[in-house]
Amino acid sequence: MSENINLWVAAHRQRLLDELFEFIRIPSVSTLPEHAPDVRRAAEFTADQLRKAGLENVEIIETEGHPLVYADWLHAEGQPTVLCYGHYDVQPADPLELWLTPPFEPTLRDGNIYARGAVDDKGQIYMHVKALEALMAVHGKLPVNIKVLIEGEEEIGGKSISKFVPAHRDKLKADVALVSDTALYAEGLPTLCIGLRGLAYMEIVAQGPMRDLHSGLYGGAAPNAVFGLVELLAKMKDADGRILIPGVYDDVAEPAAEELASWKSLPFSEAAMLKDEVGSTSLTGEPDRTVLERVWSRPTLEVHGIAGGFTGAGAKTVIPATATAKVSLRLVPNQDPAKVVEAVKQFVAANSPKGVVCEVKVLSFGPGLLVDPNHPAMDIAAKAFADTMGRETVFIRGGGSIPIVGEFHQYLGIPTILMGFGLPDDGLHSPNEKYKLDNYYLGIRTVAHFLELYGAEQN
Amino acid sequence: MSENINLWVAAHRQRLLDELFEFIRIPSVSTLPEHAPDVRRAAEFTADQLRKAGLENVEIIETEGHPLVYADWLHAEGQPTVLCYGHYDVQPADPLELWLTPPFEPTLRDGNIYARGAVDDKGQIYMHVKALEALMAVHGKLPVNIKVLIEGEEEIGGKSISKFVPAHRDKLKADVALVSDTALYAEGLPTLCIGLRGLAYMEIVAQGPMRDLHSGLYGGAAPNAVFGLVELLAKMKDADGRILIPGVYDDVAEPAAEELASWKSLPFSEAAMLKDEVGSTSLTGEPDRTVLERVWSRPTLEVHGIAGGFTGAGAKTVIPATATAKVSLRLVPNQDPAKVVEAVKQFVAANSPKGVVCEVKVLSFGPGLLVDPNHPAMDIAAKAFADTMGRETVFIRGGGSIPIVGEFHQYLGIPTILMGFGLPDDGLHSPNEKYKLDNYYLGIRTVAHFLELYGAEQN
Repeated sequence: MSENINLWVAAHRQRLLDELFEFIRIPSVSTLPEHAPDVRRAAEFTADQLRKAGLENVEIIETEGHPLVYADWLHAEGQPTVLCYGHYDVQPADPLELWLTPPFEPTLRDGNIYARGAVDDKGQIYMHVKALEALMAVHGKLPVNIKVLIEGEEEIGGKSISKFVPAHRDKLKADVALVSDTALYAEGLPTLCIGLRGLAYMEIVAQGPMRDLHSGLYGGAAPNAVFGLVELLAKMKDADGRILIPGVYDDVAEPAAEELASWKSLPFSEAAMLKDEVGSTSLTGEPDRTVLERVWSRPTLEVHGIAGGFTGAGAKTVIPATATAKVSLRLVPNQDPAKVVEAVKQFVAANSPKGVVCEVKVLSFGPGLLVDPNHPAMDIAAKAFADTMGRETVFIRGGGSIPIVGEFHQYLGIPTILMGFGLPDDGLHSPNEKYKLDNYYLGIRTVAHFLELYGAEQN
Repeated sequence: MSENINLWVAAHRQRLLDELFEFIRIPSVSTLPEHAPDVRRAAEFTADQLRKAGLENVEIIETEGHPLVYADWLHAEGQPTVLCYGHYDVQPADPLELWLTPPFEPTLRDGNIYARGAVDDKGQIYMHVKALEALMAVHGKLPVNIKVLIEGEEEIGGKSISKFVPAHRDKLKADVALVSDTALYAEGLPTLCIGLRGLAYMEIVAQGPMRDLHSGLYGGAAPNAVFGLVELLAKMKDADGRILIPGVYDDVAEPAAEELASWKSLPFSEAAMLKDEVGSTSLTGEPDRTVLERVWSRPTLEVHGIAGGFTGAGAKTVIPATATAKVSLRLVPNQDPAKVVEAVKQFVAANSPKGVVCEVKVLSFGPGLLVDPNHPAMDIAAKAFADTMGRETVFIRGGGSIPIVGEFHQYLGIPTILMGFGLPDDGLHSPNEKYKLDNYYLGIRTVAHFLELYGAEQN
């Protein structure tokens, strides 16, 4: 591990933090049209910072949606090429009233940075940029060839990058991708994520009567769009959380016995998860599966939001004409997202209640995936991680979805190292999202160390 | 039928319309706190108009909520006393984008007044006021004693009047109540409504995790408040619309065979109701009951609105922490509303899904009721109606709820004549609510004629 990198990080602590704060202050919420100018500002900020770090060929690439940012440095002859990926867009901050400090005014509290995007993913892509800057500052060059591709639509399905990658295979050619958008399994435990769930995200719209009706005059004879949607959704899962849509489990790949055994050796407390992270009266889900299986290797169906009829203060006695639900399925390796979406559409068509017409709009879908933990770059990443943290690296899966990882595999033929520095209680997508300040600096050092080791390996 | 009343109405057509429009323009939405000043203005307008009509002892009575308006004229010695009731508050106008003309700018189109409150109930209470003014103008006095009580909380459960009536039995002492807040069974068919459904209105709030969670990290193991609420609600009815909450049907009184037979002789087309009023792919509800039974003599359960989680544009992958539904049951004669509410509470407690805590908040409840169609005042009302419309009066029930009618029965010991002039397709509580202009004038004449006949009967 290069002591010079550690010294450089220590010497620039305050600047590294100030710059990240500046980045976070840009409310680059990709799903909300009113934030489109902010999303662009975040892209420009990212491009500027890559330029300042010493990267070359920095481009803001226009798309049909939010722009991509590309940069490279390709002077490490004979060395492998690493493709660094991240996203500069963030989730919406609502419900705003639950934030202790404003979501886009990053605040240091108890050693954490509190802000929307602190860990997902601004804090983590900024680590990459600063690791590259550190290597340039210390060595005057990079130990490997680097390509950087940062998108602004990760939180809304990544449509533009999905088109860009297959169309630019040569430009993006690399030996391995490096992504920091995940978490350590636990505080202090170096962790590489080798599996992710995919996601099929849909909106289901129910239409009952042609207009809202008086529930006194029509109640008992007219269909109710909200209740119809409720009936339909309720049929999709049983009380234990098993999905009842035919075909959804058909192609699910079970984890190998060895992997399941390694999960059992991880520190895990169901009681602590319930109390500290979830905070409900009990956990739920398939009773014959461990909690880690449920969140890492099992498909799920969630309703993310529902709206219909009168929801203001007080009472209004309408039979609502329409209702909408946001529904997604998390997918695991070997499931075909298109097949799952088709199964949902067929289920909705076959199970819409009498008098209510339900339509499925597909917003995005991508597969789950597994990375080979024995790939050489993965070994080096595990060693780099173990070096900076002083403990053996564990291999886990993640329950979330990073569709781009599947696309790198499919179109570029490369594995992705998921080297993330978040913590399980960071509150991604929730109010009071945080990122541990020490992990930000640790991340810069570990990424730089990995690139040094990967370059040294080839000589 | 007094020709002079008809002439008076004909002579004042434009003024009678202009004044009603002025009344309707006040957006007296009782459920929305921001409209409280408008609700008060509507009360003041009502009081002024009663004064101008020649009523005495006009009072705006303060309550814990919106004010009541009272007035009387008690100089018809030896004559019976009629208590006229109505409400000056209206339902919210949303969804605003579906109105062809602004809800609080009444517009004449195709012989109808389009506006929120046109028929429910401003147009109909204003008929009472103008009938009294006509009688005063034509005869210099009223044919019977009159008390008028108009409330501003009918659309939000009528809490204040429910307290006022039992506490002021002497002040409100009368022989019969007259209420115009219902509709003709069909265009041109004089109709008295002798039964109403009651209503128990509740809000169900579901709490799952302590905060919104990332569905990738926790999906499969953490409870989802929206899905939990969906599961709970879906258990409340079967696919045919039968309520599955134990005890709800226990005390339901079936209509007498004679009444059921009379319903069968009413003009009714299920196809026309489906096409012209409901506009869904099919009607729904208990298959072994006729549509009129379903809406008049059967209890129902409706979800009026539901909200939870992310419902903005695009995709957000949260597991929602909370969700809320507005739920009501329509009740029929002999059902005890308190017992039904208790049954719902027990059902919710027993059926809340694992990990989700559901709480029931009761917003209001009142019983269903039946009026004796052979009461003398009912006979006179039927005759007055038949006179002005030239057809035999039919006796029907209404599916809606006018809780005050039950309270007049319980505390004042008097029956209520439900003499309404709306039409089935008026779109109460919906966008583009309307009131047929001719029926407004017909109502003034019929109410005046009824009071004349009722006075004459006693001599």
